Amino acid sequence: MNDIDILLVKESIFDNNNERASLLRDELKKKKLFFVNVMSSPGAGKTTTLISLIKKLEDRYNIAVMEADIDSDFDAKRIKSETKARVIQLHTGGMCHLDSDMTRQGMEKMGIEGIDLCFLENIGNLVCPAEFDTGAHLNMVILSVPEGDDKPVKYPLMFQVADLVLINKIDTLPIFDFNIEECSRVILKRNPNAKIFKVSALKDEGIDILANEFVRRMEK
Amino acid sequence: MNDIDILLVKESIFDNNNERASLLRDELKKKKLFFVNVMSSPGAGKTTTLISLIKKLEDRYNIAVMEADIDSDFDAKRIKSETKARVIQLHTGGMCHLDSDMTRQGMEKMGIEGIDLCFLENIGNLVCPAEFDTGAHLNMVILSVPEGDDKPVKYPLMFQVADLVLINKIDTLPIFDFNIEECSRVILKRNPNAKIFKVSALKDEGIDILANEFVRRMEK
Repeated sequence: MNDIDILLVKESIFDNNNERASLLRDELKKKKLFFVNVMSSPGAGKTTTLISLIKKLEDRYNIAVMEADIDSDFDAKRIKSETKARVIQLHTGGMCHLDSDMTRQGMEKMGIEGIDLCFLENIGNLVCPAEFDTGAHLNMVILSVPEGDDKPVKYPLMFQVADLVLINKIDTLPIFDFNIEECSRVILKRNPNAKIFKVSALKDEGIDILANEFVRRMEK
Repeated sequence: MNDIDILLVKESIFDNNNERASLLRDELKKKKLFFVNVMSSPGAGKTTTLISLIKKLEDRYNIAVMEADIDSDFDAKRIKSETKARVIQLHTGGMCHLDSDMTRQGMEKMGIEGIDLCFLENIGNLVCPAEFDTGAHLNMVILSVPEGDDKPVKYPLMFQVADLVLINKIDTLPIFDFNIEECSRVILKRNPNAKIFKVSALKDEGIDILANEFVRRMEK
């Protein structure tokens, strides 16, 4: 029942990723598919956030998720068992990021007919995925409280390419030394257009507000 | 007082990193310098662990630390202000890992005369650093409890190249769902030679045992 399609994505043979990403973005827009690239460190809560968010949106939209992992299929199985989303597992065979060509391979294999909203859960990595445009309409970056509030200083590009920044696991603020105001200030200094959300995906805190943001962006 | 030397390391022009890493490892061994490569996700506690560990060892050994970061120098300043270690900040200019040539550049700039034990704090990344031999005698990988116990399944190469695996932030076990026994079983299945330590660097738990492991390895 939990069978998951698995695709080993091939390294792109093209060196014009930015152009090809723009092309994909335009194609998807014409199909009225809103495509979201989700990035974070390992263990920041990408999958839990997606499950919590999809539950709020799946009665309104047809949703798909491409789960990128080096090797495992844990996360795809979780999404499949806890939501109604269409799911495919992409294996990168050791690669540290996805580009727009790998994204396209995933969409072709999974099928996007009838899909309104498609998420890509990128490889857990704050460095490399930021360098490759996947063709997404929105980059959502998740930073979790236990990682520390200095991450936007240390991994600047990731926070520069972010449209939405989720500060996740806020239920653990009492036990970690994390200054949300200072962290937000640093993010907005580098990227004034970033929109910051404080959430706990596990405790379903702040996810309603995030879901409203998605509805707003999809219906405009 | 907290002035830190900063070196922008240049991308290696050599394509034989494995050979060059072996060469560096042998050179350092002849100089009786024990070189340790520290790797983890962003925010797993590399710097806090180093400070806690160095405090236990600095009366016995002359210690140096090369702090690799994409851009900032926070961690180098922390090490400098909290320990007696010689410190240099390496900036990678966006690169996601260090190789043996970048390591060598750092050592040449910092100076390793009289040093018994040198740590490299690699870029926070569970993917790319695992692919590049830095010339280290020991790879120490830190996995923190808030990241989740599934990381060895998802980032297999990192745990295969690890000599020591530290499960850090064990003081937070009561609030996170993390199965140490299952996680250890998965690590040891892929890498039977890995030695696993349960620590809380912040609370100074388990660091004495880790320090003893270093003494044992350095004096054999």
